[in-house]
Amino acid sequence: MGPIEILSLEEIRKSRPSKYFGLEGDVISLGLAESDFEMPKEVKEAMINAIINGRYHYEMNGNAEFIEAARDKLHRVNNVPVEDEEVLPTVGVMNAIWLTYKVLLKPGEHVIVVTPTYPALIGRPKSFQAEVTEVKTRRDGHLDIERIQEAVTSKTKMITICNPNNPSGTVYTRDELERLAEIAVKHDLYVFSDELYENLTYDGRKHVSIASLPDMYERTVTAFGFTKTYGMSGLRIGYVVAEKKIIRLMRDENTGIVIHPGTVEQIGAAAALRKCDYYINFLRNYLEGVRNRLIAELNEIPGIVAQPPEGSFFAFPDLSLLFEKDEDAVKHLLKEAKVMVYGGSGFGDGGQGRVRINFCSPLEIVEKAAVRIRNALAKRYAETIGKK
Amino acid sequence: MGPIEILSLEEIRKSRPSKYFGLEGDVISLGLAESDFEMPKEVKEAMINAIINGRYHYEMNGNAEFIEAARDKLHRVNNVPVEDEEVLPTVGVMNAIWLTYKVLLKPGEHVIVVTPTYPALIGRPKSFQAEVTEVKTRRDGHLDIERIQEAVTSKTKMITICNPNNPSGTVYTRDELERLAEIAVKHDLYVFSDELYENLTYDGRKHVSIASLPDMYERTVTAFGFTKTYGMSGLRIGYVVAEKKIIRLMRDENTGIVIHPGTVEQIGAAAALRKCDYYINFLRNYLEGVRNRLIAELNEIPGIVAQPPEGSFFAFPDLSLLFEKDEDAVKHLLKEAKVMVYGGSGFGDGGQGRVRINFCSPLEIVEKAAVRIRNALAKRYAETIGKK
Repeated sequence: MGPIEILSLEEIRKSRPSKYFGLEGDVISLGLAESDFEMPKEVKEAMINAIINGRYHYEMNGNAEFIEAARDKLHRVNNVPVEDEEVLPTVGVMNAIWLTYKVLLKPGEHVIVVTPTYPALIGRPKSFQAEVTEVKTRRDGHLDIERIQEAVTSKTKMITICNPNNPSGTVYTRDELERLAEIAVKHDLYVFSDELYENLTYDGRKHVSIASLPDMYERTVTAFGFTKTYGMSGLRIGYVVAEKKIIRLMRDENTGIVIHPGTVEQIGAAAALRKCDYYINFLRNYLEGVRNRLIAELNEIPGIVAQPPEGSFFAFPDLSLLFEKDEDAVKHLLKEAKVMVYGGSGFGDGGQGRVRINFCSPLEIVEKAAVRIRNALAKRYAETIGKK
Repeated sequence: MGPIEILSLEEIRKSRPSKYFGLEGDVISLGLAESDFEMPKEVKEAMINAIINGRYHYEMNGNAEFIEAARDKLHRVNNVPVEDEEVLPTVGVMNAIWLTYKVLLKPGEHVIVVTPTYPALIGRPKSFQAEVTEVKTRRDGHLDIERIQEAVTSKTKMITICNPNNPSGTVYTRDELERLAEIAVKHDLYVFSDELYENLTYDGRKHVSIASLPDMYERTVTAFGFTKTYGMSGLRIGYVVAEKKIIRLMRDENTGIVIHPGTVEQIGAAAALRKCDYYINFLRNYLEGVRNRLIAELNEIPGIVAQPPEGSFFAFPDLSLLFEKDEDAVKHLLKEAKVMVYGGSGFGDGGQGRVRINFCSPLEIVEKAAVRIRNALAKRYAETIGKK
C-alpha cells in the first residue's frame, strides 16, 4: 500500500479513543478531525532516539533542530523569509490561536473572521472581549472580497482566514489573497492565517501563504501544525510564525501557561519537516482518490450536488434539501447510516445545513461509509421530497 | 551507582540547553530548577512502546491509564480520595497554576500567597486582575499562621502554598496544615497547594497533602508533576486534582488553549506512578547525602549559618551579611565561583538576601560547586566583614 501502513477499522477504533468516543457497535467515525494514518516512521525514530539519548529536557527558546527545520521549510515551501526568532513552537495550532488573539487584541477591538471556519477562530476573540464579525465566503467557498471590505470598521484590528479551509476544503488562490492583502494594507490590519492543512491541496492546486505576498510578512501571523496531515494528533506540536516583536510577546505568554511544548515532540516534528515530503506526497495522492470516491457516492443521492473539495480532508455537502437543521442530518446519519459526521452550524455562518465529512481514512473505510450515507440519504429523499 | 545512571558534567551540559544557556566555559549551573538525573527507564520504555504501537492520538478526556495511575497514587500515597473525574492531566504544573487561578478567581478578588514561593504562584493572579497579599513564612520557613489569619479580608478567595516549598525546602507539618485548614474552613476559602516536590522530603519527614485533611478536599486544588523529581523537564506533563465541578471548568479552558497534554507523555507518566517508587526512594536518599555535603560546605563560610532544607532540592542560604542585594551575590558567585544560582528576590517577600542553590545533581558536581562557593564567599568575608 505504498509508504504508509493502512490500518484496519478495528485497529483505528482501538487507537483513536476520542474519535470513537461514545460510538458503539459498527459505527464509522468521519467526525473528529483526526487522521486514520500512522505518523511517518522517521518521526517515530527521531522521537525514540530523543528518549534513548536523553534529549527531553527544558528548551526555553525552542529546540534548535525544530526551529531550523521550520525556518528552512518556510523558505523552501511557503516562500516566507523568516529568521529563527520568528518561529515559536506551540502546543499544537490551538495554542497558536490562543496566543495570536491574546497578544494582538485589546478589549473592544474588532476582528473579521471568514466563515465557515474552525470554531476556535471565531470563539476565542470574544473571550478576550474583542468583537467578531463573521463574513461568509461565496457559495463556492472562496473569499467574498466586497463583503470583507464592507465589514472593516475603525476598530478592526485583524482578519482571520483558514487556508486550506476547514471545513469547506477551499484553497484560496493567489489572486484572491492579493485582493485580501490590499484591504489589510489599506486599513493597516493584521491577517491571521491558519494553514494547518497546507499540505493537502488537490487537482494540482498550489497552497499560497498570504505571508509570502508583498508587504504582508510584517502584518501576518501564520499557524502551522502536524496533527492532521502527519497523523500526529496526540503529540500536541505546531508552530506560529510572525515578526520578532510579536513572537517575543507570544513566547512570554506561553512560558506562563505551559513553559513550552514537549521537547521530544519538537524533535519528532523536525524529522517530519526534514525527511517526510514523500509521506505528504503519497497522502495527498491517496486522499485525492478517496475524495473522488466519496464525492461520486454523494452525487448519487437524488437532489444533492456535492463539489469536490479543493484541499484539506473534508467534504462539506449541503443537505438542507433533506433536513431542516444540520443537527438533524447528523442524528439521521448516525442512526440510519451508522456514520458519525459533524454538523456545519458549529463552523459559523455559512455552515448551516451542511455536514462535514472527514475522509482522512483508508479508501475501503470511506467507501463503506459513503455507500451507507448514500443509501440513508436516498431513502430520506424518497420518504420526503420523493413523496410530494 | 544504584538504579539511576550518573552523567558526567559534560553530558549534563550538552543535554540541558536551558539550564546551561549562556553559561560559557567551566561554569556549573545550580540555577534552573531541573534535575541532572535521567528519567526512569520504565518511563522511557512506556513512551517508546506508545510510539511504536500507535498510541499517540487525541485523548480529550485524558489517557485512562494515566488517570487511573494518578487516582491510585492519590489514594495510596496522598490519602486523598479522588475519583477519576477529579484528575486533569496538564502540560506541566505551570499549566495547572494558570488553570487554577483562571477558573477560581474573578477580577477584584483577593489571594493570600505564602512566600517565598515559585514566582508564577505570586504573579499569575495579578494577570487575572486579582489582588495578591504575600505573607512571609517564619524565619524557619514554616507557616506564620497568625499573619495569614490577619491577611484575610472580605474579598479573600484563596490561600496558595507550595509544599514542600520551592525555594526554601520547608515541608509543612500536619499540625501547621491543620491550623491553615481551620482558617480556610472558617472563612470559606480555597487552598491551592503546589506539591510538585512531594517526593523529596528528608530526615524521615512525611509529606502531608492538605487535601487529605478533614473538610479540606472540596476546597483544595492540588498540582502535581514529574518535571523535577523524575527528571522529565522537557516532557511537559503534570496533573491537577480538585472536585469535579472545578476540574470540568479547567478541562474546558484547557481544551481551548492546548487541547490536552501529549498522549505519549501521559503514558510515560503513568509508568512513573505505577513502577518507579524505587527511583524516588533512591533519589531521596541520594539527595539527602548531597544536601548534607552542600550544607556542610556552606557552614564553613564565616558568618553564614545554613539550615539543611527539609525537602525539595534547594538550599536557600541567607547571604545578606555579605551582599547588599541577592543579585550581587548571584553575580559574585557566577564570576568568582563559576557557579550559577538564583537570587532569592525573584521568589517574593522573604526571599531577599538569599540565593537558591539547586542540588539535584551528582554528588561530585555539587561538591565541586560547593567548594568553589565556600572559597568565593570566604574571600568575600575576608575582604568585607573581616577587614572591619
